[in-house]
Amino acid sequence: MTASDLPVFVPEHGVHMSLPFAIYGTIIHSVSVEEVEIIDRGLLVIGLDGKILLFQKGIAREDVISVLSGSGFNPRALLLRVLKRGEFLIPGFIDTHNHAPQWTQRGTGRGRLIMDWLNTVTFPHEARFEDPEYARETYADCVDGFIKQGITTASYYGSLHGEATKILADICLKKGQRAFVGKCNMNINSPDFYKDASAEVSLQVTEDFITHVRKIDPKSTLVTPILTPRFAVACDRDVLSGLGRLAAKNSDLPIQTHFDETEQEMEITKELYPEFANEADLYEHFGLLNERSILAHCIYVNEYEMGRLKDLNCGVAHCPVSNTTGGSFGAAPIREYLRRDIKVGLGTDSGGGFSSSILDAMRQAFIVSKARELATGGADKHLSLNECFYLATLGGARVCGLDQKIGNFAVGKEFDALEITTRKEHPSIITPVEDIDSMEDIFEKFLMSGDDRNIARVYVRGRSIKNQP
Amino acid sequence: MTASDLPVFVPEHGVHMSLPFAIYGTIIHSVSVEEVEIIDRGLLVIGLDGKILLFQKGIAREDVISVLSGSGFNPRALLLRVLKRGEFLIPGFIDTHNHAPQWTQRGTGRGRLIMDWLNTVTFPHEARFEDPEYARETYADCVDGFIKQGITTASYYGSLHGEATKILADICLKKGQRAFVGKCNMNINSPDFYKDASAEVSLQVTEDFITHVRKIDPKSTLVTPILTPRFAVACDRDVLSGLGRLAAKNSDLPIQTHFDETEQEMEITKELYPEFANEADLYEHFGLLNERSILAHCIYVNEYEMGRLKDLNCGVAHCPVSNTTGGSFGAAPIREYLRRDIKVGLGTDSGGGFSSSILDAMRQAFIVSKARELATGGADKHLSLNECFYLATLGGARVCGLDQKIGNFAVGKEFDALEITTRKEHPSIITPVEDIDSMEDIFEKFLMSGDDRNIARVYVRGRSIKNQP
Repeated sequence: MTASDLPVFVPEHGVHMSLPFAIYGTIIHSVSVEEVEIIDRGLLVIGLDGKILLFQKGIAREDVISVLSGSGFNPRALLLRVLKRGEFLIPGFIDTHNHAPQWTQRGTGRGRLIMDWLNTVTFPHEARFEDPEYARETYADCVDGFIKQGITTASYYGSLHGEATKILADICLKKGQRAFVGKCNMNINSPDFYKDASAEVSLQVTEDFITHVRKIDPKSTLVTPILTPRFAVACDRDVLSGLGRLAAKNSDLPIQTHFDETEQEMEITKELYPEFANEADLYEHFGLLNERSILAHCIYVNEYEMGRLKDLNCGVAHCPVSNTTGGSFGAAPIREYLRRDIKVGLGTDSGGGFSSSILDAMRQAFIVSKARELATGGADKHLSLNECFYLATLGGARVCGLDQKIGNFAVGKEFDALEITTRKEHPSIITPVEDIDSMEDIFEKFLMSGDDRNIARVYVRGRSIKNQP
Repeated sequence: MTASDLPVFVPEHGVHMSLPFAIYGTIIHSVSVEEVEIIDRGLLVIGLDGKILLFQKGIAREDVISVLSGSGFNPRALLLRVLKRGEFLIPGFIDTHNHAPQWTQRGTGRGRLIMDWLNTVTFPHEARFEDPEYARETYADCVDGFIKQGITTASYYGSLHGEATKILADICLKKGQRAFVGKCNMNINSPDFYKDASAEVSLQVTEDFITHVRKIDPKSTLVTPILTPRFAVACDRDVLSGLGRLAAKNSDLPIQTHFDETEQEMEITKELYPEFANEADLYEHFGLLNERSILAHCIYVNEYEMGRLKDLNCGVAHCPVSNTTGGSFGAAPIREYLRRDIKVGLGTDSGGGFSSSILDAMRQAFIVSKARELATGGADKHLSLNECFYLATLGGARVCGLDQKIGNFAVGKEFDALEITTRKEHPSIITPVEDIDSMEDIFEKFLMSGDDRNIARVYVRGRSIKNQP
């Protein structure tokens, strides 16, 4: 019996496997910030629980069966998928910052200052999610859209509405996307048509939402509620301290907010909360800054705050696409965060970010880091593509506190993966792969010029949730 | 007889129309740098020669027939195409700077300094075009790729090879793309495996190439030869002065080169040509700087040079995608060029630019202009999306000296156009269009999040050269 005797395995959409399955071919993942491992002739076995049972490297094709047998698998009770040249596996993309209700306004109103953009573009859009029917339809399209782009884990801000946000959680679970989902808290400095009725209501809807998610996915296999104060500008002291109490009481819950994003936002924060010298002190005071915090943007973070982020082990969601198209051009100090081993991942910031693709976020992270290198006179060396790929995968997993579970293909982790194709039969605009190309070349072509059409299959916890026709 | 009685017209791929045709629906184009006209219920009639015969605005659907009759057309001897909501026409995109032989290396080797990138990545790739068979296959794929992206006019650098560059011209003509095509001149500072044998050979191959294009398209209906000294670093005085003589002798020929692109390139130029204080003086001295010049990049242009560019009426090919991903981060002073009414268009710089899409170039032009606004303390206000759209269409036409012929839908111009669809039945990742959206919203969604899948049809001189299935 040889590998070619095994049944060719074409994963069925959305179906849990009835047998463990193995994938053989080129496998690419990050093992550290700098190091991307490109594994030729790799062999992965994924169990029925979606976990990686075996990962072997450099296996000759004729040895696949004996390696499987020798590792205790019955090759006849296992499905094998063999990747061709130009196809390879990478870990799923992790979007650490994403506003689900902004799906239908993505990229509009760019160039405006933050408060103007929120009031004229964003809040009228988000207000529509009061209607559960609208939420159901739009969130289904949104989650489909992100899955199509290879986003296996997303940290979503919902709207302020409890019911719509429950619908978002239900949809992620049903469609099989790993997600943090948060009811957005905002009871001040927002228009009457779109703000929480009171601090009390804001907190009560949040608790009710948490209860709902605990019920539909008790073990957080896929969906986890996340505490989501929009930002201090939109939350009064009662909301912030109430959420801090919830964070203390539920030590498994992640927390997300916007942090040092724009000068305008920082000035208003300072006026509202003059007792705090900076945003780090503010959020820390309310119990919202710890190793579970995902802080979006972190552009204008001062030396003191950087120390707090490091000491408290907070994560940074870097969103270069929105940071460079809003009212200002913001280039976050990512090199400095990496130097200090502060956790960093990428966010599409869909809504403010015009693209729903982490590939675009990677490319823009590369570009923005070059602007930063220029601005710092070379002190902050630009990111390499390998580092950008790390941010999109393992870095994002660290930011979400999920790096023991996902982010690369270490044995024991859950199998969240993308099957990439660069082959000509898939119509995309990727730089054509040629015979002379090394695997490094092919990978680089994908990173720089691939799009969703090159993401042929998407797996979360071993379940196939996108199969390109 | 009403509009709905007319036959629905579906253009056949690559076929010249046998009847004049009319398009009715939303039409969007630039009328100046700042002003984009969004025309509701517009009516265009295109003649058999590919020229726009009629352009009327705000015509009620029930009046289409009478307007046609009243304008001297026989509605029964005319094909009518009616666009639905979410569909609209825009002028074709003009790519003012594009390296055809870099199609298969697009986006690779980014982050390197220019000379290193040329020697290690680019020249080995371009050298492959010595093989006509390879050129035929690769250029066919390249031109198809750009047509798919809605590039109706491209200014191509070929490789240094005469035969391959003739093949490129033949392919553009056959596929119906409007193109400037140039045999690249480079006889010094290039590796032995890839440089012109001598100045004499370089010039002779150029003349032979010009003769070929004059033969296949005598009136330059679509294809025009362009003089293409790669840059002064790669050309000795004999080549530059020989090309200058050709430029003087052929007063219809456009000229293209790289100009003030990177500090490294400028230093080497200064060493090679110490008698010139700057690149403007250098190229002007050799007779290569005039109203027919397309100067790629123009990032580090000093005050004196800016004066020369203006006085000599040169055009600037702004390539923000490659400028921000090479060895440095370059933000060209586009606001200043527009202020001085220096001609500016966009280039993909495919090869150095990782994207083959003018939509990406527009977005990056917007982003880079924001970086420039920050760097100039607000003096150089960032570009608006409308200005970016102008650069991609009418601005590019001016740079190519084609603004009397193409660039918008003025009566008498040739019909180079894109039919855009944002409708759901086309699977793309565009921000979903909603019922509440105005035409301005829909246009903005396309500019910020559309891709080639939203470009349903491409017309050049009235001929349909892309029909999406």
